[in-house]
Amino acid sequence: MSQSVFTTVARPRATALADAIEALAARFGNRLVTSQAVREQHAHTTTWIPPQPPDAVVMAQTTADIQDVVRICAPRGVPVIAFGTGTSLEGQVNAPAGGVCIDLRDMNRVLAVHSDDLDCVVEPGITRKMLNEHLRDQGLFFPIDPGADASLGGMAATRASGTNAVRYGTMRDSVLALKVVRGDGEIVTTGTRAKKSSAGYDLTHLFVGAEGTLGIIAEITLRLRGIPDTISAAACSFGSVEGACRATILAIQTGIPLARIELLNAAQVAACNAYSKLTLPETPLLLLEFHGSEVEVAEQTRMFGEIAAECGSSGFEWATRPEDRSRLWQARHDAYWAVKALRPGSQAIATDVCVPISRLADCVVETEDDMKASGLEGPIVGHVGDGNFHCSLLCDVSDPAEVTRAEAFIGRLVRRAQAMDGTCTGEHGIGQGKQEYLAGELGGAAIDAMRALKKALDPQNIFNPGKILPPT
Amino acid sequence: MSQSVFTTVARPRATALADAIEALAARFGNRLVTSQAVREQHAHTTTWIPPQPPDAVVMAQTTADIQDVVRICAPRGVPVIAFGTGTSLEGQVNAPAGGVCIDLRDMNRVLAVHSDDLDCVVEPGITRKMLNEHLRDQGLFFPIDPGADASLGGMAATRASGTNAVRYGTMRDSVLALKVVRGDGEIVTTGTRAKKSSAGYDLTHLFVGAEGTLGIIAEITLRLRGIPDTISAAACSFGSVEGACRATILAIQTGIPLARIELLNAAQVAACNAYSKLTLPETPLLLLEFHGSEVEVAEQTRMFGEIAAECGSSGFEWATRPEDRSRLWQARHDAYWAVKALRPGSQAIATDVCVPISRLADCVVETEDDMKASGLEGPIVGHVGDGNFHCSLLCDVSDPAEVTRAEAFIGRLVRRAQAMDGTCTGEHGIGQGKQEYLAGELGGAAIDAMRALKKALDPQNIFNPGKILPPT
Repeated sequence: MSQSVFTTVARPRATALADAIEALAARFGNRLVTSQAVREQHAHTTTWIPPQPPDAVVMAQTTADIQDVVRICAPRGVPVIAFGTGTSLEGQVNAPAGGVCIDLRDMNRVLAVHSDDLDCVVEPGITRKMLNEHLRDQGLFFPIDPGADASLGGMAATRASGTNAVRYGTMRDSVLALKVVRGDGEIVTTGTRAKKSSAGYDLTHLFVGAEGTLGIIAEITLRLRGIPDTISAAACSFGSVEGACRATILAIQTGIPLARIELLNAAQVAACNAYSKLTLPETPLLLLEFHGSEVEVAEQTRMFGEIAAECGSSGFEWATRPEDRSRLWQARHDAYWAVKALRPGSQAIATDVCVPISRLADCVVETEDDMKASGLEGPIVGHVGDGNFHCSLLCDVSDPAEVTRAEAFIGRLVRRAQAMDGTCTGEHGIGQGKQEYLAGELGGAAIDAMRALKKALDPQNIFNPGKILPPT
Repeated sequence: MSQSVFTTVARPRATALADAIEALAARFGNRLVTSQAVREQHAHTTTWIPPQPPDAVVMAQTTADIQDVVRICAPRGVPVIAFGTGTSLEGQVNAPAGGVCIDLRDMNRVLAVHSDDLDCVVEPGITRKMLNEHLRDQGLFFPIDPGADASLGGMAATRASGTNAVRYGTMRDSVLALKVVRGDGEIVTTGTRAKKSSAGYDLTHLFVGAEGTLGIIAEITLRLRGIPDTISAAACSFGSVEGACRATILAIQTGIPLARIELLNAAQVAACNAYSKLTLPETPLLLLEFHGSEVEVAEQTRMFGEIAAECGSSGFEWATRPEDRSRLWQARHDAYWAVKALRPGSQAIATDVCVPISRLADCVVETEDDMKASGLEGPIVGHVGDGNFHCSLLCDVSDPAEVTRAEAFIGRLVRRAQAMDGTCTGEHGIGQGKQEYLAGELGGAAIDAMRALKKALDPQNIFNPGKILPPT
């Protein structure tokens, strides 16, 4: 792992860099920032990967700003890295070759909402909470919720998802079209507002998940949903991870349109009890949410109740009152902080894998056993409807031995998931942290194809170099 | 339109072609066919586009067969064209540069069904009806239904969808992973069986919709669904197209999980009445289908009934009995034949566009007016939940003046849809017939990007040349 991260990506020539920064200063004035503090802020990685700050940061306000940064940097061979909120988890915003970070936080406008079409057009810097705030009055919402209040540009770039992907899909399913700034500063339009299209190669979904390595996303057209009439939540304890997974499989086979179904393993429930002052039984737990009309939600809960009982659920707590619902889901949202609180001062290294749901119980249980055997601590939460789960590994990142142990554990976790026909990352992306696992998952021919695509669309390797593709 | 179709794509050198055919004959024996009748069968285009037969056809039985065809043809510069059932509608299987057609009908095995994971792995030549036949006993189904009994490989290649995309999505949403034979005969694996992944560039969705121009699909992993407990159908007449579209918009905003919602305009209803011996009122009609538990379906129909009444529906006929449901949907499925029967001997040229649903009524009504003004006849059916509709233009393809009039009409239809922020094709693809419209929809930078991708993955232009990208 370290290898790929620390592999040197060639820095631009010093004179070219100085020249670019001079040109950027002339164009952007005090919106070009080169102070160490600001540069470091833009390299925080929320992970074990060491920060690698850019040489400068430009606070972009318009698409033309992005175009001008690219037009100044690209001919000089200076890397360009897009930055939303810095909540990515695999080193996506690091600048291993230096270069210029484009901070998009001021590009946070909603450009249009089309309520009849259930879509909107936004700038990349808007966060999902800001967007939902904006939409609420119109009875609409944007469903993708990765936990962090991430920017939509960043969520598109990492193909993010989260707790209600089981019903509403991931960013892949939510992005209808993009405007992307390419290497010569021109704009590539990838689609229209039509809900579906067979018109040529799917550029939209090539840029979604490309982690800013093929161009900079300047505008996003997103699918929206109507706010459901009724929302109800439930917490449902099981004697085993297998029971919880079996209930999930049956519910999905039956076609219950679960809005969220989250697994917390016993260790995570204990951490949440301590942190959020709850009294949940410290056994595997499913947290559920149902959306629909009153009748539909009642029917969904009835059907799930039967399945849960069949699968040995030991307790079933319903919460239709908003405050009870919030209490439960707040605990889930605070799961990461609950883990960190277990060992104050430690970092919690978040990693994720995703497997076919039939293998999820095996994968979680083997991972729990591995953790115990390795002397590591790291509760598990899972978007169980998708077979996707997270380990939050407690780790003293200043202790190289502990980091090495954590890295080895992550390697085993990834290979376990891949051996079960799964993927090394369900929603965090490759960034720097997962590069070495890509070939093991898809094989050399897929890596060749990805390299060919990168070269086709970014021949100078200007956009976010050193990410996704392992060094040759 | 004709321009792009008739543009000459360079044929391989005659000696290279002869050499390739000799090598194929040695490898495939009587599974290599060069008779004119068989070559012509593999160029039928089900459209106005003149057939362009390949030089030879290979009946493939295994992935190794596909690999060998590519390994023989590619180094000699001989084009390779994949063939499923030949039901594509924009000339996708034509061979404008000649070359070798790989007929995949014998590669129709189901390699695996994972019922807990709701997925299966199939060969590309299996048709959707064969697949559903295979799945039925396990309580599973594959929901994408483009009307024709197309092959799954062809459906993936054209990013097909159809009547129940409004609920279950398109091929884009249904393909989890592919194995694709690339230009040197090696296999690219694009994904795993995990329901979601953020691992690198989205190769799967680059090959889905690429119309066989980037490689040959040899294996497909598909998402499946559980067969719903209860299915009910309804027919619902409206005084106007606007009323029918308004009802659709409200139903979707409300979150009713419509399984199908099809619009037939008055002309199409009349054609269906005549052909299928029905007595439906000859005004705009919505045909609906609801899937779920008994309680859910009852709730959905109740909710839709209220909305339809609000939107001025004049009559509402429910059909929960399978035979009544079949009768209604059979009429919808026979819509194309009903149109052809209006003028025996004519061809019905099927074309499709897709617009944001808020513009659908405008687009349909303007198209009806245009048709009347042009002296053309062509009933309209629409997958109205997606804003996607089809015109089946009656046309005597042996009359150049009528073909020219039809082409001009299609051009206006496409530009109308594009002006409404829509796309020139929702589900038929670009093939040969829609090439000239692509730049008008997405702009030159998108075309540049597509050309770069084609060159990156098929540098010799071996795979289905002359499709998707307009001639330079």
